[in-house]
Amino acid sequence: MNIIEQTYKLKEAAPRLAASSEEVRNKALLTVKERLLEHRDEIFAANRADLDRAESEGISQAVVKRLKFDEGKLKAVVEGLDMLVKLPDPIGKVLLSRELDEGLLLKRVSCPIGVIGIIFEARPDALVQISSLCIKSGNCAILKGGKETRETNRILFKLIYDSVLESGLPEDCLAQAELHSEIDELLTCYKNVDLLIPRGSNAFVRHIMENTKIPVMGHSDGVCHIYLDKDGDIKKAIPIIIDAKTQYTAACNATESLLIDRSRADEFLPLLCEAFKENNIKLRGNKEVMDKISGYSSVDEMKEEEYNTEYLELTISLKLVDGVKEAVSHINRFGSHHTDSIITENSETAEYFMNMVDSAGVYHNCSTRFSDGFRYGFGAEVGISTGKLHARGPVGLEGLMTYKYKLYGRGQIVKDYSDGRKEFHFRDL
Amino acid sequence: MNIIEQTYKLKEAAPRLAASSEEVRNKALLTVKERLLEHRDEIFAANRADLDRAESEGISQAVVKRLKFDEGKLKAVVEGLDMLVKLPDPIGKVLLSRELDEGLLLKRVSCPIGVIGIIFEARPDALVQISSLCIKSGNCAILKGGKETRETNRILFKLIYDSVLESGLPEDCLAQAELHSEIDELLTCYKNVDLLIPRGSNAFVRHIMENTKIPVMGHSDGVCHIYLDKDGDIKKAIPIIIDAKTQYTAACNATESLLIDRSRADEFLPLLCEAFKENNIKLRGNKEVMDKISGYSSVDEMKEEEYNTEYLELTISLKLVDGVKEAVSHINRFGSHHTDSIITENSETAEYFMNMVDSAGVYHNCSTRFSDGFRYGFGAEVGISTGKLHARGPVGLEGLMTYKYKLYGRGQIVKDYSDGRKEFHFRDL
Repeated sequence: MNIIEQTYKLKEAAPRLAASSEEVRNKALLTVKERLLEHRDEIFAANRADLDRAESEGISQAVVKRLKFDEGKLKAVVEGLDMLVKLPDPIGKVLLSRELDEGLLLKRVSCPIGVIGIIFEARPDALVQISSLCIKSGNCAILKGGKETRETNRILFKLIYDSVLESGLPEDCLAQAELHSEIDELLTCYKNVDLLIPRGSNAFVRHIMENTKIPVMGHSDGVCHIYLDKDGDIKKAIPIIIDAKTQYTAACNATESLLIDRSRADEFLPLLCEAFKENNIKLRGNKEVMDKISGYSSVDEMKEEEYNTEYLELTISLKLVDGVKEAVSHINRFGSHHTDSIITENSETAEYFMNMVDSAGVYHNCSTRFSDGFRYGFGAEVGISTGKLHARGPVGLEGLMTYKYKLYGRGQIVKDYSDGRKEFHFRDL
Repeated sequence: MNIIEQTYKLKEAAPRLAASSEEVRNKALLTVKERLLEHRDEIFAANRADLDRAESEGISQAVVKRLKFDEGKLKAVVEGLDMLVKLPDPIGKVLLSRELDEGLLLKRVSCPIGVIGIIFEARPDALVQISSLCIKSGNCAILKGGKETRETNRILFKLIYDSVLESGLPEDCLAQAELHSEIDELLTCYKNVDLLIPRGSNAFVRHIMENTKIPVMGHSDGVCHIYLDKDGDIKKAIPIIIDAKTQYTAACNATESLLIDRSRADEFLPLLCEAFKENNIKLRGNKEVMDKISGYSSVDEMKEEEYNTEYLELTISLKLVDGVKEAVSHINRFGSHHTDSIITENSETAEYFMNMVDSAGVYHNCSTRFSDGFRYGFGAEVGISTGKLHARGPVGLEGLMTYKYKLYGRGQIVKDYSDGRKEFHFRDL
């Protein structure tokens, strides 16, 4: 069966999955958990095969760490399933209940989006996390994981799919794509797929966004900033900057650019350079920065237009600005609307920054690395959105829901209201 | 100034407009109201010029009615402004407040989307309605109205823009496009425009959707259905069907297709045909329908694949189906996910229909024509969305908002949490 046919079947299954009871969906999640635990040895063996192949192909240790599915990852995944089961049912929440007139009742009720296509990196735990979020939220899904973990993905998907069927959820509510070529096929399925969530490199996400009519939720660049204000506390600033740059350099919420208030640059820069040196952080800056920190060994001059660079490694851009206003305008111009933080002891300046910076996350005195579904207490996330429509920032269960308007009448017609024989009275219940 | 430069200025003004106080935005709305009342004679004169030109160009009376801006329309517009002023401020609502750990507070706060491009039909009252929704919601907007009302649009826009400046809102928070060629230019401004809302013909909306990287909110087709169930009350059904088809045939929420349970067709069809005849409604149906109602004079045979036709005139498609299940599957296949209604006295069947039909509006025993922001009590609408992301159905103030996450810390870094020195406790406040 090709992808187009598969998405057609998902579309057909979508209203049936949406109408399934919370009990059955939770039972499916618990069955997934049981099956994963029962078949751990087979899963680990499949993962061993993936790792062996990766190592023989000379893949870097950082990537191998991501591919690995071991006891620790299994434990995390199982905890995630337990937590999802405990969350309230996101389907059927009454978001608005309004009597338009006597006997004419309007309800806005939450319901699943329908069919979601998710293309994600080579992380087997992501496959379990994403498919379980879709089961809980009643969304049909087609999943395409990274090819480096195809053996692990295959057995995990089989165990999940069998659990779903065994629990009584509709056949064809989940599908797996395995070939890279199938991604392009998936991009054409705008009649059957309601939403695409791509995760991966900037270039990859941008390719998806530019080559489909299906709405896309996600982000390409993650150019996060920290602005060290004139009222900033350098003792707070240094650990925050080091954390935001070094704690996980490959993450989208790692900081790529540091702005410093010019009036305190001479005082802050020597202390910062010391911390950068200790942490092997390379600096890049414009002419002014170069002149100020000529003593620092690892520094490169950069052009103004390069301030939008996402390094994803131990390099950071540096710039001096005249106060919070210039910082905001730089961030709105060069940033990627992901997450930006201000270090200041002045809460008025902080509030100005947080209101004026046009990003999904605006932080005061903490690391940009907090921008994550787990750390926000969402339990899990399908991704992070830098778009402003629908969901913004880390996207959990809520971002997988839409709503519909149900209107209950007794034979009402519009003509009576437009002719003035009847009038709406709009009473929220 | 060309459109690209204009949208760049709107983008710059957006955070300042977003940070404006409710008081100033409401003052702007009240000033708009005053100015419109003060300059009514100039507005009517400009409108007279538009009407004269339209009549000399032989534009139909139905369109002329839409172009007209008279005392009645002015009164409606002024009432709308008064009502908007009374609505609570949509900016800065705290949608979530959660302590992640001691001294680390996460807030999800509503904020405007930013810059919205709205392209609308030749209806001067729509210009006032849309721009006032944007002012109230703190969104910068670029407005392009139909060319048939360009004189009226010009004076209305000038009065609105002057009021906005006079009240202290940022310069460049509103712009007007007047040339049709400027639409294509606007479609390229994805860096500065956050959302496009096109209103108009299907072909036009589809053109917009297919030719821009900017997210588009709206709908192209409006193929609404009524399903007359085996437990339907024909006495309710006939007025509902006639209202949904005839009350305003050009509207997107007018019904285009009627499905009837086969088991009661012989009983219902003669009564329906009588009502259709009285209202000059032309029928189209497949072979089975043709055979059943051969006595009805105004009937055409249609092919199965034509059941997705939007007539926007006194014509309706007719089909017999085997119960609610087939009705649902027909609607999900041929409909446009706008609004669909079931006529039945069986509330279980109704609930099944309302859950399984994948449309923004799912109705029980009432006319599809109720699908409208005013009739839902939203006060006004910028349009109706058949998309499932962000806003669905009639879109009022709420649909013009997004949110951002504000995180307030005291120097927290992620490493402490990932190394296990600290733990999140997630307490909703």
